[in-house]
Amino acid sequence: MAKVAFLLAKNYEDSEMKVPYEAVKEAGHETTIVGLEKGAVCEGKKGTVSYTTEVAVADVNGNDFDAVIIPGGSAPEALRVNEDVVRFTKELNSQNKLIAGICHGPQVMISADVLKGKTATSFIGIRDDLKLAGAEYKDEEVVVSENIVTSRTPKDEPAFVREILAKLS
Amino acid sequence: MAKVAFLLAKNYEDSEMKVPYEAVKEAGHETTIVGLEKGAVCEGKKGTVSYTTEVAVADVNGNDFDAVIIPGGSAPEALRVNEDVVRFTKELNSQNKLIAGICHGPQVMISADVLKGKTATSFIGIRDDLKLAGAEYKDEEVVVSENIVTSRTPKDEPAFVREILAKLS
Repeated sequence: MAKVAFLLAKNYEDSEMKVPYEAVKEAGHETTIVGLEKGAVCEGKKGTVSYTTEVAVADVNGNDFDAVIIPGGSAPEALRVNEDVVRFTKELNSQNKLIAGICHGPQVMISADVLKGKTATSFIGIRDDLKLAGAEYKDEEVVVSENIVTSRTPKDEPAFVREILAKLS
Repeated sequence: MAKVAFLLAKNYEDSEMKVPYEAVKEAGHETTIVGLEKGAVCEGKKGTVSYTTEVAVADVNGNDFDAVIIPGGSAPEALRVNEDVVRFTKELNSQNKLIAGICHGPQVMISADVLKGKTATSFIGIRDDLKLAGAEYKDEEVVVSENIVTSRTPKDEPAFVREILAKLS
């Protein structure tokens, strides 16, 4: 089974964490919640769920995991300005490992410069940023482009989860 | 006195609208709230203020105004995907008229492609997007670069307003 990191900070979109997290766990994969620091209690922006980070991103590297999943909301803007988040994402990408993001999650991919030459989607409000980062933008429920999997909104979660599980199997 | 457009949609950062709006009015300039449609009641994300749009952006052009001011919050992501918002911003820029944005406001400038070769600032979470749009990023309370004025957060409002009023005088 795969080792899957969830990259989290407070104010993520609740269901974009909960739904993939439970599905990946249920499929038998090993999950780790990675944050800006260890032991940080992270509530979703809607306040319906809360998760505690298990390890600081400064203490992980691309060899430790097979994949990273990045929920949306406001969390990606807090994560993407952290040098270790960028380093960790680049390391996974250089090993061609799965990087999956939904809604604003792809903002981390922009900062890590892993979208050049890929096709991708996101919340429409950051569409132009993905294009400037070198992605070909598609308005589809899920876009799979080599190791990059992206979706637009909570409504796309079933398709997002389906493609993540397919990549991990 | 100058004709100043405020570009607004719901869920803007309350004070980033209220403070510049009242200062520009008090200085005697003519203000118009421009939105995605006319007569839309737009509440701030904190719910402390509400403004009603006076004209739809589809019905204005760069000749009608001397400046546009773009508050932050979530509103800029709704505005920047609108073709007329992009057209209007490009028109003002081509006439070298003031375009001022604070926090997430510069997201509209990215989509209108008016940042190439300029220096600018913003909320730090979108810093990398400004760089990809061709701006030289500066972490300062206000950055004036030809016709572009930008600031980072509500704390910077006094500096933001000061430079706007200087440009309009």
